[in-house]
Amino acid sequence: MINWNNMDTLEAFKELKETKKVNLREVMSGENGAKRASEYSVAMGGGLKYNYAAKAVDEDIIEVLKKFANEAQLVEKFEALYNGEVVNTGEKRLVLHQLTRGQLGQDVIADGVNKRDFYVGEQKKIADFANKVHSGEITNAKGEKFTTVVQIGIGGSDLGPRAIYIALENWAKKNNTFKMEAKFISNVDPDDASAVLKSIDVEKSLFILVSKSGTTLETLTNESFVKDALKNAGVDPAKHMVAVTSETSPLAKSDDYLAAFFMDDYIGGRYSSSSAVGGAVLSLAFGPEVFASFLKGAAEEDILAKNTDLLENPALLDALIGVYERNVLGYSDTAVLPYSQALSRFPAHLQQLDMESNGKSVNRFGGEINYQTGPVIFGEPGTNGQHSFYQLLHQGTTIVPLQFIAFRNSQIGQDVDIQGSTSQQKLCANVAAQIVAFACGKDDEDSNKSFAGGRPSSIIIGDDLNPESIGALLAHFENKVMFQGFAWNVNSFDQEGVQLGKVLAKNVLAHNTDGALKVYSDLLNI
Amino acid sequence: MINWNNMDTLEAFKELKETKKVNLREVMSGENGAKRASEYSVAMGGGLKYNYAAKAVDEDIIEVLKKFANEAQLVEKFEALYNGEVVNTGEKRLVLHQLTRGQLGQDVIADGVNKRDFYVGEQKKIADFANKVHSGEITNAKGEKFTTVVQIGIGGSDLGPRAIYIALENWAKKNNTFKMEAKFISNVDPDDASAVLKSIDVEKSLFILVSKSGTTLETLTNESFVKDALKNAGVDPAKHMVAVTSETSPLAKSDDYLAAFFMDDYIGGRYSSSSAVGGAVLSLAFGPEVFASFLKGAAEEDILAKNTDLLENPALLDALIGVYERNVLGYSDTAVLPYSQALSRFPAHLQQLDMESNGKSVNRFGGEINYQTGPVIFGEPGTNGQHSFYQLLHQGTTIVPLQFIAFRNSQIGQDVDIQGSTSQQKLCANVAAQIVAFACGKDDEDSNKSFAGGRPSSIIIGDDLNPESIGALLAHFENKVMFQGFAWNVNSFDQEGVQLGKVLAKNVLAHNTDGALKVYSDLLNI
Repeated sequence: MINWNNMDTLEAFKELKETKKVNLREVMSGENGAKRASEYSVAMGGGLKYNYAAKAVDEDIIEVLKKFANEAQLVEKFEALYNGEVVNTGEKRLVLHQLTRGQLGQDVIADGVNKRDFYVGEQKKIADFANKVHSGEITNAKGEKFTTVVQIGIGGSDLGPRAIYIALENWAKKNNTFKMEAKFISNVDPDDASAVLKSIDVEKSLFILVSKSGTTLETLTNESFVKDALKNAGVDPAKHMVAVTSETSPLAKSDDYLAAFFMDDYIGGRYSSSSAVGGAVLSLAFGPEVFASFLKGAAEEDILAKNTDLLENPALLDALIGVYERNVLGYSDTAVLPYSQALSRFPAHLQQLDMESNGKSVNRFGGEINYQTGPVIFGEPGTNGQHSFYQLLHQGTTIVPLQFIAFRNSQIGQDVDIQGSTSQQKLCANVAAQIVAFACGKDDEDSNKSFAGGRPSSIIIGDDLNPESIGALLAHFENKVMFQGFAWNVNSFDQEGVQLGKVLAKNVLAHNTDGALKVYSDLLNI
Repeated sequence: MINWNNMDTLEAFKELKETKKVNLREVMSGENGAKRASEYSVAMGGGLKYNYAAKAVDEDIIEVLKKFANEAQLVEKFEALYNGEVVNTGEKRLVLHQLTRGQLGQDVIADGVNKRDFYVGEQKKIADFANKVHSGEITNAKGEKFTTVVQIGIGGSDLGPRAIYIALENWAKKNNTFKMEAKFISNVDPDDASAVLKSIDVEKSLFILVSKSGTTLETLTNESFVKDALKNAGVDPAKHMVAVTSETSPLAKSDDYLAAFFMDDYIGGRYSSSSAVGGAVLSLAFGPEVFASFLKGAAEEDILAKNTDLLENPALLDALIGVYERNVLGYSDTAVLPYSQALSRFPAHLQQLDMESNGKSVNRFGGEINYQTGPVIFGEPGTNGQHSFYQLLHQGTTIVPLQFIAFRNSQIGQDVDIQGSTSQQKLCANVAAQIVAFACGKDDEDSNKSFAGGRPSSIIIGDDLNPESIGALLAHFENKVMFQGFAWNVNSFDQEGVQLGKVLAKNVLAHNTDGALKVYSDLLNI
């Protein structure tokens, strides 16, 4: 029997608030710091490790977090989710994105089909299609191979797939699995589609229209934009376009598309990178085997999320440390800082994943909650960020918990040795240095040069950024956000907060406005 | 006589805390909302307007902000700055970036020269060089025209120039002033330089090495990276590289560069876009006339910042509303939300500008301060953000003040009419809708679909994103951040918080580590 109770009803939460705080600067100094850095580490999927030595926790706090996890039934709630209970209460839907990468529990039958079979079937359809495009069996009207794939989608149909594409582009080129360049059109700003279309040869481009409902304003508008461009180039749009949508959408059976690949209502946009939404573009760009490796890395991480032992469940541990920081220590932001240029857009994906999932003010039943929920997420790659906003992180009046990510090896492998070290070593030296600088600080006679320290961080470390490790990274954060949603007792799978703006925008376009809305419409010449 | 006192000593600040709060939802509704939207607007440079109707202020609060501005002598402090006082107290330097775009006060003589003449002289040198590159007078060794310019720099040598390049790229192509493609190498991650070098024809590329001191680790490392690539291509690096640096740096008189353009210690990196740091790359990419227009827009905004009347000084007004939100209403973040794909990296520039300037915990003399300073800045373009993190902005437990930016016209001018409106109209309709949705909210029987409203925003509106308007935007935020630094009595022009990480990274590379730092170094295989 699962109890969905608000967090402040938990005995363990009350105990957590009363547990002695950790002086991070103290515990991370000297031999004790070395001991923590060695021991406070949990294995993740994809060959990664989650190290939390520089978080303001200790064994006493971890003990209480274990009680919290048990009392809040966090792993049982995950079990209910992957076994097909209606966990998305607001929209009365199952939540099945993990099923795209593996069968975690019992068979899930919905809409009369086994959903694992359904997702695997779509993966096979996509793989078959991608192989035919790569082999030249599917070509443009002139019989020429497609050289470019363009994803038309917004939000989850854009951010995750784009971040993963950028993460793997150089890896794929290096490993001879790069098949086609991918581009992305998302914004309703006409300059977005115009600029992308100017940068490609439309005659050799394949477009993927991604919209679950088939009704997303931006995406349908950009589809028309692209179809105009294709027609102007003398090309039949139906021969250059595939759809990723739900089987019930108007796009599903349309003759306007070369093929249609399906997702369903049980996978939210921000959780859809491992569904056909990511599958089509990534399989076309890098080949289906690369996408399969990505799923494998994600599956490894999902299996770890089933562990009831907090110290063998990295997503759960990361989640609960985050809850401690948000609700006991009172920190309201989290910075995601990958020391990898290839992860330049990964923070933007996590920003959506986290803020859209847990930026809620009512509980999963619409009832009141009396505590803070999801934090603000932002970030840029290191070392770039060091020369930008790190000043505030080190010496500002707001403490921001930090999530570092780093890899021992570069992707391309070209490097220079300057002053006795390679660029890759310099990159890694910087992230090591930052962890300690943030945690331990440094006193100085000149208070302007003093660092208070006590600024918590964790780091995820791997050998290489490759399909498996990016899969594991993606799933780790999906599962972390899910566990935090369970802890806060919110529904992490709906997004009612985006609706009001859509309704008002329609009113503006219909000139159905008054008051301030009319004035702003006039100011903007609508 | 100027008094540099902490903010909490000001009578006006005490009064501000006690002034009746505004119920934003109430005042923005109905006819009163229309009145505010029409009237709460201030002219900016570059043809822009700053509209603050949806901020939680009213005439009473504005009156107190006027007193605050006077008591804190904010405009006098700006006057001291542009007349050449040592406002950067920590580093004992003048602060002269405004002088690159106009003479705001008396002649400033430093290092024995008239600094306005010096900056204009460098602009002329750059214009002359760029014109020769464009005309083919300066070519590669084979006598071929350079087609690409690559900026090598990090932090302020990267973020501002890159954001402005992206902002104007499509505009320049549309207006036939596009001369050369620009690329940027910033990160010490070797994959950054490798990927850029793979994407260009190095034989036809001109590289700009940007480092004021000539000692920035990342930039010198990337210079070596590029020189290796040039040598491997059989090209003499000295014929493909120019330097932007200070006259006293080791790069200034080196034979390794085709030319050197100078900045000086009176312009901080994050304020350097209007100096040679932005001037060289933007003049090469778009022509010197475009860069001159950019400076003109910035100069217009600077002149407005001299106004003692708060309601004729948009940067000062924006600054003080921000202080009110930070220190009276207690908000700790600000989201920058441009409804323009071309401004996709402008939030990243503002993130550095603001967080590196005002993320400080001691006052300008190193003394204690007992209030919050600079907020966390983040943002992405609309409408993309609407499908991402806006859920938290609308319904999360944290209130985040918002800065919208929108233009009536697109840059490229290609558009489609779908369901009775163009994409550009849809884009503008969305931003108008969001302002009202955030301010006024909406009740619903289903609490999950309720919007509390009361979430403040301002909007900057213009006809077009062009050189003058981006210049004005840049200067507006520079001046806003400066005024906030004056209000908080911090030094907005140093960045001691970035030093500790640099020192520790050097220790790691020298294997001079112990404790946690040694463990992390080992974990990362350094």
